[in-house]
Amino acid sequence: MSSNKSPVFQANTLWNKQPKANAELFALTYGALVGELLVDMEDPLQIQNELDRMGHSIGVRCIEEYLAKASLLDGGIKNVTSFADTADSLKVALKMFLGVLPDVSMQQSKYTLIFHENPLALFVELPESAQGMEYNQLVAGMVRGMLEQLQYDVDAKFTASQLNGDETNEIEVTLNQVLQEGAGEDYQEE
Amino acid sequence: MSSNKSPVFQANTLWNKQPKANAELFALTYGALVGELLVDMEDPLQIQNELDRMGHSIGVRCIEEYLAKASLLDGGIKNVTSFADTADSLKVALKMFLGVLPDVSMQQSKYTLIFHENPLALFVELPESAQGMEYNQLVAGMVRGMLEQLQYDVDAKFTASQLNGDETNEIEVTLNQVLQEGAGEDYQEE
Repeated sequence: MSSNKSPVFQANTLWNKQPKANAELFALTYGALVGELLVDMEDPLQIQNELDRMGHSIGVRCIEEYLAKASLLDGGIKNVTSFADTADSLKVALKMFLGVLPDVSMQQSKYTLIFHENPLALFVELPESAQGMEYNQLVAGMVRGMLEQLQYDVDAKFTASQLNGDETNEIEVTLNQVLQEGAGEDYQEE
Repeated sequence: MSSNKSPVFQANTLWNKQPKANAELFALTYGALVGELLVDMEDPLQIQNELDRMGHSIGVRCIEEYLAKASLLDGGIKNVTSFADTADSLKVALKMFLGVLPDVSMQQSKYTLIFHENPLALFVELPESAQGMEYNQLVAGMVRGMLEQLQYDVDAKFTASQLNGDETNEIEVTLNQVLQEGAGEDYQEE
């Protein structure tokens, strides 16, 4: 396999082709979103769930664009025939949208995405009121949405976070079940 | 004056140096923010005011970074000695943070910033419930916050918007009064 078909090469190619915004303005806008939730909701877990829900719907949209654009690249999209295969797809898709390439630590029926940088938390000082929640939960929601489109129902949760003093940001992705292609719609008619 | 001291050259230089995020993810995240406000508040004008308030605090932060970085450029920062001068500063600062360079139409004690593209509204379909509000109000708030830091108290409002079918996005900036440097803090002690 030539190097221009590797996930890292594909990830950088797709990232370079994407239209760009200012990373600081993006982080400030995300901060405004979290701040709005902090005003509206008292329970940190409720805020985290809301960020997860938003991330899920963003992830569904992002993975579709990844599939459309990656299929045009040299090497195309690696076939996803197992849960473990999805880690490569996610690496590329997350780099494409977050600009950060995660490392992957693979275990049995789960894997961990390790980010050494966090684009959502540039310039962020976490307010007191945000203790007890995961500020970056949007990204975990994105991961869950992306994998759902690839027909894998997973739990995705942060197990390390630089904002809480950890060295890296880590999302643990655990397989719940493999979904059937188009299952949702068809089953409702029975 | 050589061309590398022109506002357009400075604007492009600063924009190119800024760390980047994915423009689509930025627009989707802004959409999630507006969506959250739509759920929480019934009155479109209340939502618009909230976006304006957020934009103001983001604008205060952005103009400070613009001043710090632009002062290091060849040509430095053009002296701002009148309200009309602020238009050049805003052109550069808005390009630096939004990636879009506005045209300026200058009138007596007001000017209009004309954007031919809108980075906040990429990929956006305005929901029914968002009728009667200015989706992009964050940018008008940013303009207000930026000018306040430059000691000009202004009104900044959208007078044209592509999301409402107009050909361009236009923000009309009207001078209310010139502020005194550091006036706020000192006056409170008297």
